[in-house]
Amino acid sequence: MTTFATAGVNKEEKQLGGAGLRGQSAGTTALCTVGKSGTGLTYRGYDITDLAHHAEFEEVAHLLLKGKLPTQAELDNYKQLLTARRGLPPALCRVLEEIPAHAHPMDVMRTGCSVLGNLDQELDFSEQGEKTDTLLAMLPAIICYWYRYSHDGVRIDTVCPEQDSIGGYFLEMLTGKAPSDLHKRVMHCSLVLYAEHEFNASTFTARVCASTLSDLHSCITAAIGSLRGPLHGGANEAAMEMIEQWQTADEAERGIMQMLANKEKIMGFGHAIYRESDPRNDLIKAWSKKLAEDVGDTHLYAVSERVEQVMKREKNLFCNADFFHASAYHFMDIPTKLFTPIFVMSRVTGWAAHVFEQRANNRIIRPSADYIGPEPQAWLPIGERK
Amino acid sequence: MTTFATAGVNKEEKQLGGAGLRGQSAGTTALCTVGKSGTGLTYRGYDITDLAHHAEFEEVAHLLLKGKLPTQAELDNYKQLLTARRGLPPALCRVLEEIPAHAHPMDVMRTGCSVLGNLDQELDFSEQGEKTDTLLAMLPAIICYWYRYSHDGVRIDTVCPEQDSIGGYFLEMLTGKAPSDLHKRVMHCSLVLYAEHEFNASTFTARVCASTLSDLHSCITAAIGSLRGPLHGGANEAAMEMIEQWQTADEAERGIMQMLANKEKIMGFGHAIYRESDPRNDLIKAWSKKLAEDVGDTHLYAVSERVEQVMKREKNLFCNADFFHASAYHFMDIPTKLFTPIFVMSRVTGWAAHVFEQRANNRIIRPSADYIGPEPQAWLPIGERK
Repeated sequence: MTTFATAGVNKEEKQLGGAGLRGQSAGTTALCTVGKSGTGLTYRGYDITDLAHHAEFEEVAHLLLKGKLPTQAELDNYKQLLTARRGLPPALCRVLEEIPAHAHPMDVMRTGCSVLGNLDQELDFSEQGEKTDTLLAMLPAIICYWYRYSHDGVRIDTVCPEQDSIGGYFLEMLTGKAPSDLHKRVMHCSLVLYAEHEFNASTFTARVCASTLSDLHSCITAAIGSLRGPLHGGANEAAMEMIEQWQTADEAERGIMQMLANKEKIMGFGHAIYRESDPRNDLIKAWSKKLAEDVGDTHLYAVSERVEQVMKREKNLFCNADFFHASAYHFMDIPTKLFTPIFVMSRVTGWAAHVFEQRANNRIIRPSADYIGPEPQAWLPIGERK
Repeated sequence: MTTFATAGVNKEEKQLGGAGLRGQSAGTTALCTVGKSGTGLTYRGYDITDLAHHAEFEEVAHLLLKGKLPTQAELDNYKQLLTARRGLPPALCRVLEEIPAHAHPMDVMRTGCSVLGNLDQELDFSEQGEKTDTLLAMLPAIICYWYRYSHDGVRIDTVCPEQDSIGGYFLEMLTGKAPSDLHKRVMHCSLVLYAEHEFNASTFTARVCASTLSDLHSCITAAIGSLRGPLHGGANEAAMEMIEQWQTADEAERGIMQMLANKEKIMGFGHAIYRESDPRNDLIKAWSKKLAEDVGDTHLYAVSERVEQVMKREKNLFCNADFFHASAYHFMDIPTKLFTPIFVMSRVTGWAAHVFEQRANNRIIRPSADYIGPEPQAWLPIGERK
């Protein structure tokens, strides 16, 4: 998912045309459609709007990873299993304690996943479902354990059976307090929206890695590394940094107009594939509004709405999934630098489902390159070089 | 680089046709040609045969990373700089001590690189050369520190200014003894041969990751994860496991004939791109022969040669770079499970050079997928599911 947009047109990118494999098929998937006419975004045929309104995140994880929406009994079992796997191994805790507070949170996620590959190695592909469940259970604990230890000097207990959802568990690990029902519901919606998005760059990274028949932790570690890039994850963090500088909607409008005049990038708008709108925007925007009312917000939601209006009016650009995530997360007191790690906690389901799919019908992904380097040249002994 | 071959033809792979991006260009490179008529393999226009015969590995690293073969003064400076950067940070040593002896050595390499990204973060692309040099200097220490601690209970001193080459340093870290001139020369050749190979799966992984504008450590961590896969790295380890079961050349011939009859995979033969021969084979084979004489080998080299002859005669398949690497490394007392980590120590130069290249002319790599999943389906309340 390319979640950024430039206000102006980048001429160099236009020239690159065929680069970036844009529009070239790199394989098949049964997991997701993005931007297909009339559907917007579907996971295994289910519309994202239905999923975001009705489903808990664990139902969507089950849909992506196990192939179907769970019955009540299956959902109960799945949540119980995920809850039981949360406690981090002591060796992983000790590793996280070595990572300084100034580290990049996505480097922490990448490292936590990689370390887990040493402690809980996938020895055979028959273990892929089980290893994925463990990762899904532990990723919130990885970021929160590091965050609380490095920032507050607190060693949190990562077991926490009180929370039966991944979103609720994350919020309790982060704040030390049981989250409200509203916050838990918003986390379900957010994690559902971020769970899967076809052959975006991080998912494609996971599939290239999987195509060498490497292990699950290598694939997910690699995907986290790609999501870390500012052209991919992180747009909601950048949107937050932008909107929090303005105190009123009018101030935001002046700021945006100035940024557009300066041809600065406005994060959280437009999309590489969606042309008219991002179906995820309305869904998270509604929750952001509710949260604003809940916390008695005086300006941030109004600022966000105004930015949306100005971008539509001036550039005909729409909000993507990231823009209203910024205010929504902020209203739940989540530190901005943890926004992209939440993306990981959710997208790990899509990544893993793509790894399973790649493995089931694999050919190593090995494209060609056009050579633009020097012609063959004769060896030059070291004394003759300049 | 696909370094495996199946003796029979895999029908499913044939059907996949366009999958795996085979033959599709995914970008441009000035670093390498593979299998171009009359040239075999070139790094920036220099023939691999010249480089393997004449160059130290550090000269090739300089060629790939800094764009030119170094003068004597540049080479001396570069080696001095790499030597000075070897000592692992104490926090990284403590992390490596948490990884059990039964871990996969490539998981250790992947984790060591990822941890280093936390301790020595690339904050700006202007630091890419410097961060790469540090990685290049530390990767041998990462694997040896873990190996010696987890297997022998020894905390090695990773500074070691006595060795001025990466290959010699690796051997001294591993064995605790200064390596012979012959061994140092073989390591130069080996590291030169593995340094770069165009858009192979691990390099392509690094480029996809780089295309999101992620940091260097994410890209290299991701690439290590891909090289870990048995369809990519590890062919020399598999070749070693095969040849060491035979005590004579005749026994090897009977064994290979039986494996061919059973349609088993024979590792170290054939190549996805080379059609007639792998130019790297003659180069490492000559060193394997010399090492066999040096150690007074009674059968392993003869076994290897016979396997080569039988595969040529029966299947018209040639040895790739990996096959004679197995015996060569074995003659230098390198444990089989550390063969692929050596590949990392070398290929990190090619990976990083590709990351620099991707960054210099970037477009996010985001292909499409062909959807083969269910049609749009209506939401199903949980009570109605089966």
